[in-house]
Amino acid sequence: MRLTLDNINPNVRRAEYAVRGELAVKSEEFRARLAKGDKWLPFDHVISANIGNPQQLDQKPITFFRQVCSLLENPDLLKNESALVDSLGYKPDVLDRAKWLLKQVGSVGAYSASSGVPAIKESVAKFLERRDGFPADPAHIYLSAGASSGVNTLLNVICGDKTAGVLVPIPQYPLYTATLALLNATCVPYNLDESKAWGTDLETIKKSHQKAKDAGVDVRCIVIINPGNPTGASLAEEDVRAVLEFAREQNLVVMADEVYQTNVFVGKFHSFKGVLRKMQQERPGQYDGLELVSLHSISKGMVGECGHRGGYFELVNFDAEVEANIYKFVSIMLCASVIGQCLVELMVNPPQPGEPSFELYDKEFNGIHAGLHERAVALHRAFAQMEGVECAEPQGAMYLFPTIHLPQKAIDAAAAEGRPADEFYCLRLLEQTGICVVPGSGFGQAEGTLHFRTTFLAPGTEWVGSIVKFHKEFLDKYR
Amino acid sequence: MRLTLDNINPNVRRAEYAVRGELAVKSEEFRARLAKGDKWLPFDHVISANIGNPQQLDQKPITFFRQVCSLLENPDLLKNESALVDSLGYKPDVLDRAKWLLKQVGSVGAYSASSGVPAIKESVAKFLERRDGFPADPAHIYLSAGASSGVNTLLNVICGDKTAGVLVPIPQYPLYTATLALLNATCVPYNLDESKAWGTDLETIKKSHQKAKDAGVDVRCIVIINPGNPTGASLAEEDVRAVLEFAREQNLVVMADEVYQTNVFVGKFHSFKGVLRKMQQERPGQYDGLELVSLHSISKGMVGECGHRGGYFELVNFDAEVEANIYKFVSIMLCASVIGQCLVELMVNPPQPGEPSFELYDKEFNGIHAGLHERAVALHRAFAQMEGVECAEPQGAMYLFPTIHLPQKAIDAAAAEGRPADEFYCLRLLEQTGICVVPGSGFGQAEGTLHFRTTFLAPGTEWVGSIVKFHKEFLDKYR
Repeated sequence: MRLTLDNINPNVRRAEYAVRGELAVKSEEFRARLAKGDKWLPFDHVISANIGNPQQLDQKPITFFRQVCSLLENPDLLKNESALVDSLGYKPDVLDRAKWLLKQVGSVGAYSASSGVPAIKESVAKFLERRDGFPADPAHIYLSAGASSGVNTLLNVICGDKTAGVLVPIPQYPLYTATLALLNATCVPYNLDESKAWGTDLETIKKSHQKAKDAGVDVRCIVIINPGNPTGASLAEEDVRAVLEFAREQNLVVMADEVYQTNVFVGKFHSFKGVLRKMQQERPGQYDGLELVSLHSISKGMVGECGHRGGYFELVNFDAEVEANIYKFVSIMLCASVIGQCLVELMVNPPQPGEPSFELYDKEFNGIHAGLHERAVALHRAFAQMEGVECAEPQGAMYLFPTIHLPQKAIDAAAAEGRPADEFYCLRLLEQTGICVVPGSGFGQAEGTLHFRTTFLAPGTEWVGSIVKFHKEFLDKYR
Repeated sequence: MRLTLDNINPNVRRAEYAVRGELAVKSEEFRARLAKGDKWLPFDHVISANIGNPQQLDQKPITFFRQVCSLLENPDLLKNESALVDSLGYKPDVLDRAKWLLKQVGSVGAYSASSGVPAIKESVAKFLERRDGFPADPAHIYLSAGASSGVNTLLNVICGDKTAGVLVPIPQYPLYTATLALLNATCVPYNLDESKAWGTDLETIKKSHQKAKDAGVDVRCIVIINPGNPTGASLAEEDVRAVLEFAREQNLVVMADEVYQTNVFVGKFHSFKGVLRKMQQERPGQYDGLELVSLHSISKGMVGECGHRGGYFELVNFDAEVEANIYKFVSIMLCASVIGQCLVELMVNPPQPGEPSFELYDKEFNGIHAGLHERAVALHRAFAQMEGVECAEPQGAMYLFPTIHLPQKAIDAAAAEGRPADEFYCLRLLEQTGICVVPGSGFGQAEGTLHFRTTFLAPGTEWVGSIVKFHKEFLDKYR
């Protein structure tokens, strides 16, 4: 063997990605055993609450989106419009949109320009203008294979080596730490404030930043996930302002991961771009050198099209030569999936009131939003009743991230297995109930605390009951 | 500004990717000007012969594939089978395949397992067994976003830093040099033999390898592109054997880029996996430690579904712990586009004789193959007539890579512009004819030689005439 654990890229070896780690692999093994008729497990189906994957958990895709996609995949269908309309229920605006998109992309089987189909970038720019009330330039919009691919691009350009540091919230979505590990760059963690529903605390950020600077790290960027993953927190405008002001003072690029921007239950989503433009208006010239990149995705929200790998990022105030290098980087992987790009167009430019498909679209969109909120509240209520469990009120995203207090005996038993106590807890939960969640250690957590992340996507309430029951038995066993 | 050309990741800055570089960007600008009605250009359309993008150049997708995809995107269509069959001409096997795939993936909008949908990996394994006559294990097959993403994964795992070297053919597809630059690993170039239709020459490979070893490089891997890109060469079995034998002797991982395996006009494609298994049978135990990864894609061949970003790679003889790290690496980007994965399934498991969709599939597949061969021959014939141009007979892939001998005055004029002479030539070709090709320097070429790469995908022969005319005028100008 040429390659062994000892001689492969040590950065790859060091990277960790718990969302799809040991527990996820084990849950897939259970699923396969059940599918083959295995009767020996103490549950009859696996619930993947470890990953925000709505359509795996029976969320139905938005009809308008998929009708358009079916025509993009097989444009020959458009040769028989009457069959589409009369027999298959396609509305005229579905046909119109498909024809328009086909005109823009040629074929969804052809590579697009590296940064995406120009007309789709224009649709994204118009969406951003409507959302923020400020102009957006398609030239600075890049269509990507989900937000993950955008994050990968940007961190690759920003970080050269160990001396480059990036401020990352803790807990965080592990894409950030994993990518920084692959680049052998320095993750500069800053704790979110659990006592303030996982909001950002500027004093904490400042301390982490200073500590890294003192250690000789060239801190270049601050990552903000808003609404939060895994926490579900949704930032107030003043929090967004505080981060931007700090970034200006310290000369940091702001990376705003805003993939959950429509998954907000409490208050209102404040985009970093919108707030930055307001601050630029209020204090002209002060923020023109502040680089912001904001990312969005078709995987989350009410769209939930994870499997299609679509998303975009917008660059604000970037140097032209730096942007040329970002363009070159994305061109090496050629382009994002073109059907995924088309879904981005549909997401940012959905049917409008008065259009034939609007009524159904609106009903589906609101139905999904209400369903998510309902399940978040039900799950939160269950956690509130569980001994030794505390959980912030659900504000947004697709996740809850409760604190769990475990008895010393459980912590000792975990140590005897060589596992962190939260991982031990989550593994037992999976083995006994078939429910897969992710231990807090997979996202990072303040020292001495234990958590797990669960999505609230799974339909029904039976599985919530299973968690409550498991938790009680677990505590009784180790009390 | 926080980020400038001087402080971004120097590896990104160093990477080069000519296929989508300056000429490609310029050609897109010309295309946009023409679309806006610009009458000042000396041509009325742009021909993108710089990139293997069949469907951009009017290659029609395979009907069976796209009919299935339309049902995967909108499964509601299956509620009205009679309309599909009677009014829209869908055959029963289209419906059956879509239902089977939907059963396997759930929804194409859901993330799949990180390495791909298990049933699709099984289809790939069966295809490999039929192709090679040897068993294939789905556990070692990884579905990827095109072959590019697979190459990126593997080079990331294989190469830690500057000391790690990879043997790369020259000329090569620049994905390899670009990715090695991003990893700050060492590219160890070996020249292909233009006098033997761009085949591999073992003595040349040995010399390059020895030279790198002498310089202290830890050479870990040899890349072979077969059939060749940009050269179109198709290796004989004895050449494949020679590379495998050399890799065994020198303890190198073999990376076989076989994305053009069905684009073969002369002789027969010999897969590295098939040949390795034969050698293992002939000399039991001798090759069990030889790691091979072979890559394939839906972008090329008669499928041509570049925009869908689908592909796979198969690992042979890899250490289990190393493979676990490959799995972890792919999991960070979650999964490849699921509709792209489904197209992989359709590619490896197309309609069979006797099935309702076979006749049309077979006609389309053979029609595309014959059309490509015809155009390759026509283009080759045109090059044969051009003064100072030499071109190997087209054997496979989608490209010709002619040598061009340019007058000293042209070389001087290029130098005055600060450009390599081949780039100067290709830029003038684009400006005067609208035809975009890639200079040989974008792929690497033996010192003192000049080439360009052109696809033979564009329909018609008019554009070939334009190249001939341009070339004559160019020579006359600089003679």
